[in-house]
Amino acid sequence: MNQKEMTGNQNSWDNLLADFPKGPLSRYRKKASFNWKEMAVFIDGEDIIQLKNRVFSALENDPLFAHHPGEDLCREKYQELTFLRCKRLFEYEFLTPQEIMEQPFRVFNMMSFLGMYDCSLCLQFFLHCTIFAGPIMSAYEKFAHILEQTYRMEIFGCFALTELSHGTNTKGLRTTATFDPSTQEFVINTPDFEAAKFWIGNMGKHATHAVVYAQLYTPDGQCQGLHPFIVQIRDTKTLLPMPGVMVGDIGEKLGLNGYDNGFAMFHNVRIPKENILSITGDVTAEGKYSSSIKEVKERFSAALGSLSTGRITITGLSTAILKLALTIAIRFSAARCQFGPAEDEEIPVLEYQTQADLGREIHALSAASKPLASWTAQQAAQECREACGGHGYLAMNRLGEIRNDNDPNCTYEGDNNVLLQQTSNYLMSWMNCIRDKAPFESPLGTINFLQDYHHILGWKFTATSIEDCMDSSVPLAAYKWLVCYLLRESYLKMNKEKQAGRSDFEAKNNSQVYYCRSLALAFIEQTALQRYHDYTHDPSVPAALQPVLRYLSALYGLWSLSKHLAVLYQGGYASGEQPGKFIQDAILELCYRLKDDAVALVDVFAPSDFILNSPIGKASGEIYKNIWGEILQGNKALNRPSWWAEFCSNKPVIGRLRSRL
Amino acid sequence: MNQKEMTGNQNSWDNLLADFPKGPLSRYRKKASFNWKEMAVFIDGEDIIQLKNRVFSALENDPLFAHHPGEDLCREKYQELTFLRCKRLFEYEFLTPQEIMEQPFRVFNMMSFLGMYDCSLCLQFFLHCTIFAGPIMSAYEKFAHILEQTYRMEIFGCFALTELSHGTNTKGLRTTATFDPSTQEFVINTPDFEAAKFWIGNMGKHATHAVVYAQLYTPDGQCQGLHPFIVQIRDTKTLLPMPGVMVGDIGEKLGLNGYDNGFAMFHNVRIPKENILSITGDVTAEGKYSSSIKEVKERFSAALGSLSTGRITITGLSTAILKLALTIAIRFSAARCQFGPAEDEEIPVLEYQTQADLGREIHALSAASKPLASWTAQQAAQECREACGGHGYLAMNRLGEIRNDNDPNCTYEGDNNVLLQQTSNYLMSWMNCIRDKAPFESPLGTINFLQDYHHILGWKFTATSIEDCMDSSVPLAAYKWLVCYLLRESYLKMNKEKQAGRSDFEAKNNSQVYYCRSLALAFIEQTALQRYHDYTHDPSVPAALQPVLRYLSALYGLWSLSKHLAVLYQGGYASGEQPGKFIQDAILELCYRLKDDAVALVDVFAPSDFILNSPIGKASGEIYKNIWGEILQGNKALNRPSWWAEFCSNKPVIGRLRSRL
Repeated sequence: MNQKEMTGNQNSWDNLLADFPKGPLSRYRKKASFNWKEMAVFIDGEDIIQLKNRVFSALENDPLFAHHPGEDLCREKYQELTFLRCKRLFEYEFLTPQEIMEQPFRVFNMMSFLGMYDCSLCLQFFLHCTIFAGPIMSAYEKFAHILEQTYRMEIFGCFALTELSHGTNTKGLRTTATFDPSTQEFVINTPDFEAAKFWIGNMGKHATHAVVYAQLYTPDGQCQGLHPFIVQIRDTKTLLPMPGVMVGDIGEKLGLNGYDNGFAMFHNVRIPKENILSITGDVTAEGKYSSSIKEVKERFSAALGSLSTGRITITGLSTAILKLALTIAIRFSAARCQFGPAEDEEIPVLEYQTQADLGREIHALSAASKPLASWTAQQAAQECREACGGHGYLAMNRLGEIRNDNDPNCTYEGDNNVLLQQTSNYLMSWMNCIRDKAPFESPLGTINFLQDYHHILGWKFTATSIEDCMDSSVPLAAYKWLVCYLLRESYLKMNKEKQAGRSDFEAKNNSQVYYCRSLALAFIEQTALQRYHDYTHDPSVPAALQPVLRYLSALYGLWSLSKHLAVLYQGGYASGEQPGKFIQDAILELCYRLKDDAVALVDVFAPSDFILNSPIGKASGEIYKNIWGEILQGNKALNRPSWWAEFCSNKPVIGRLRSRL
Repeated sequence: MNQKEMTGNQNSWDNLLADFPKGPLSRYRKKASFNWKEMAVFIDGEDIIQLKNRVFSALENDPLFAHHPGEDLCREKYQELTFLRCKRLFEYEFLTPQEIMEQPFRVFNMMSFLGMYDCSLCLQFFLHCTIFAGPIMSAYEKFAHILEQTYRMEIFGCFALTELSHGTNTKGLRTTATFDPSTQEFVINTPDFEAAKFWIGNMGKHATHAVVYAQLYTPDGQCQGLHPFIVQIRDTKTLLPMPGVMVGDIGEKLGLNGYDNGFAMFHNVRIPKENILSITGDVTAEGKYSSSIKEVKERFSAALGSLSTGRITITGLSTAILKLALTIAIRFSAARCQFGPAEDEEIPVLEYQTQADLGREIHALSAASKPLASWTAQQAAQECREACGGHGYLAMNRLGEIRNDNDPNCTYEGDNNVLLQQTSNYLMSWMNCIRDKAPFESPLGTINFLQDYHHILGWKFTATSIEDCMDSSVPLAAYKWLVCYLLRESYLKMNKEKQAGRSDFEAKNNSQVYYCRSLALAFIEQTALQRYHDYTHDPSVPAALQPVLRYLSALYGLWSLSKHLAVLYQGGYASGEQPGKFIQDAILELCYRLKDDAVALVDVFAPSDFILNSPIGKASGEIYKNIWGEILQGNKALNRPSWWAEFCSNKPVIGRLRSRL
């Protein structure tokens, strides 16, 4: 029986998902081994597809969201447009508070839909609704009126953590909040411009209120560590700065220019005592500090707990961006038939709970999934740009915007390299249990395989043919060995450094490259591959979708593993010519087998043409017609330049200025 | 004797090169193992430094070249400014024709100086002066008046090769030039929009004349292949299109937006017979075709011979761009002390000659040096951006512009991956000689080591300590083995494909990834390393500069080699844990030893602060003061947005549009 005919739900799929226009891509679609609609419904579910359709068609039908081909939108206009669109999102209210309560995951779906339309808009909206509102919600009784104003967009929020001279190293922040018992106020102060809040999203033009992180000083002169405070920074009637606040826009960036990043300095700005967000600590009316958490270090972690959510969100946003880049490049390259699809990262979105072990594991996972997803998207966007040649370099085709808007994902919410250290620290923390052969497990089970550490270190590469490598179990086994090996090597390296008399800081620093950093990356790749392997080998996968999904799983595993091939040899997991050749040849063979499915695979995750907004990426595949049409619509494409007279009549006098040299 | 005191020429160096301002970087400069001025004079020579000083200070002192911090320059204004600056360059006449004749290499230096200021300007100027004028100069007697007008900027030129649907595959171009004996004219025609000339630099707004590549048709209906013709496309008095020409701008790009890339369609545009650039062939008055080159394939190569120059130029431009990115990132990161310098590629610039063997070797080298240089610059620019964290993402710091302006270097003048095939084809062409053990050598000697092919394949990794690996001879030997091994493997793979009945095209296509592509890259890396090794081990290197230069050579070699480590194991050159560890540990040790020299090394190649134009990259190292100063100079940094009333009084009605969904 032809797999494509297994279409029990064909009608419902057709109602959900429209057919693509006929065109140059039709013949590739016919070659696909599976029905893309079946795949889309299997992966996303009908509910999410309906939500997606609702969002995408609302934006497409609203002139405020229209694209303007060839228009040279200056940064200020782009910011204005983003703001107006953000406001309009409140009027659409795609998800009611009720719906969010019922299925919180939908917020992440909404983010990725809006991110596909425009990352600046997406960030502006969610920064206000979640990153600003989130910490306030932790004390919703105290701040019910602020939350109400937030959801009605009567105020507009930002999250002010980083400073000009301190980004990732949040412990070094220098803004102060000194409690004045005589007036029952906190005095927020910026000691000098290097401590100005900096890079703060939404602060450049719009925010009226900020969650400001500052070092809390009690009247006895003691510093109690970093705490968040709600500070009004602009008047809601005039948008002018509040007294004592100097606030502005930090200027043009490489991307995300619809989004207003800002700076602020506080000159002894007084806020009421109750504006402390007492997540971790509070002061009494007399100015005595109290906290349920005794350790300064733990208080610090608790104060910044919400950053894990941020990282998980970025993982999702990078995935959405990756989908855009792949859609454009694979549709463009379909005729060339030499472009194999990379795997998109389906990092499971985890719900935040306060249980400490789970919190640590989530932290370790999000601190590595964010680097993996953002770097994968960054490199894939660049490869997609190059794969589309010159046309990939035309702004209208959007690969530049995609790459530039993804770029900060590698940096904010913790620099990727710094975050990876936290994952390797987490893994190293299990070495005592491993050494003592004590039983252990983690709440999500991602490190449970380390119980077999000693056994796994004895494993070898055993595949004896290319065909053997066509299943993801082969790279998965290699990854388990790799994580154990790198864990051992990192542990030994760190101890060697310490025995040589280096400080903890130095020892860690000297053990990053080739050791801890590789360990953290290998671990998260292994975790993603394990999830994907289990997902694709689950009996619930429709038979028609199994082959392509399993090939993708194998390809992702082998391709990803191939970057660690030297270590497999170095550590003795592999030896001789064959393992390397099998892996390489299996990758080539899988690319070959997946080639005819590539177009249908991007059809599964591609947004609508309006959202994709890329002439070479449109579903029709009429790449040249689409480019040509867009150019001729462009503003002044055929006009002579306004400075033509400068060319025609005002000729240079050759060498006239040579005497000045 | 302290090496820094070996300053026989201290006075002349000080006259050439000014000291840097005191500041946070001073302490790193004091730690350097060498005198940066001695290094600069040794590497560039006094002449070139004088030329550089002359160019940089002319631009800095001329208000037309001033930077405008915080100004949101729209694309059209940027294009106008670039044009006015280009015109001004003619008035400076930094190099007279006489000076160029005496030392043609200086043109490449000029390009890199202008490229450091602004790539768009650099391309506009040199495209007109060299890429457009070059082919015309090959028949300078016939076109003396055109050349004169070119050098006086009375006309403005472009080089029209690629078409909308054909870029790298130039054989598929479809513009036609049909000879009409009745009027002694060629009729230039574009059959349809997909054959429109596209991506042509300078064509968007300015060019009055184009060198147009078209398929020559003689009156007998025969196609004689691709030939270049001079076609006037705009009126020089009005800048309006000539009759029958539709010409315009292709719109915004990811970078280089000061530069006007354009398109053109020709509707039976008639040009005089003499406008054929008869480099490869010509027609008689009766319409009979004649050519000194019989083979169509060879005529095609000859017609496009000037593209090698283009590729060598791009190699140089990528190097200049790499210098900018490294200067910014290393100065910014100096305080962090964890940033090791990558090596800049000093690919020797080769002079073009017509001798066929030399031509082939230059082609093979330039077809690989351009990918190596442009990819190295692209990846380094991205790494520098990330190493500078959020501040690297601020547009004012220029790493985005640097990356985006370098990006097309990976694509134009031949897509990098396609070019690499030409290098591997060249290398494979020696396999017959190798197999027959016949003696052979090439004009530049870059493949002479392949004479020892059989012997080299028996080599093994022999270093027995990290210290052993501190000299570039270790990676160099490994590279020679690697090239031989990949040559053998590629040859075997290709034969296997052919024996399996695949066509030549298919066989080649299936032998790229892991085989021919790796071969070409390994070969050019080996060539660059050999040159650099010889350069740093030459007795003429001043003693004070030897240690740092040799460390750099070793670091470049090992770092570059480490990407091929798996193949060294796979092919049996390396085995066991030690080779990999030695190489990794030697890289870490070299980074450590070079750390204190990093700032002084970028001082050697950094342009002046005005040219560098990056607050975090300035020589003073006062990064925060510089950023802060620039932001406050920004246009409207502290203003409330013009749409403030929209925020303050026009609030969204939550859910108002939900009914529309």
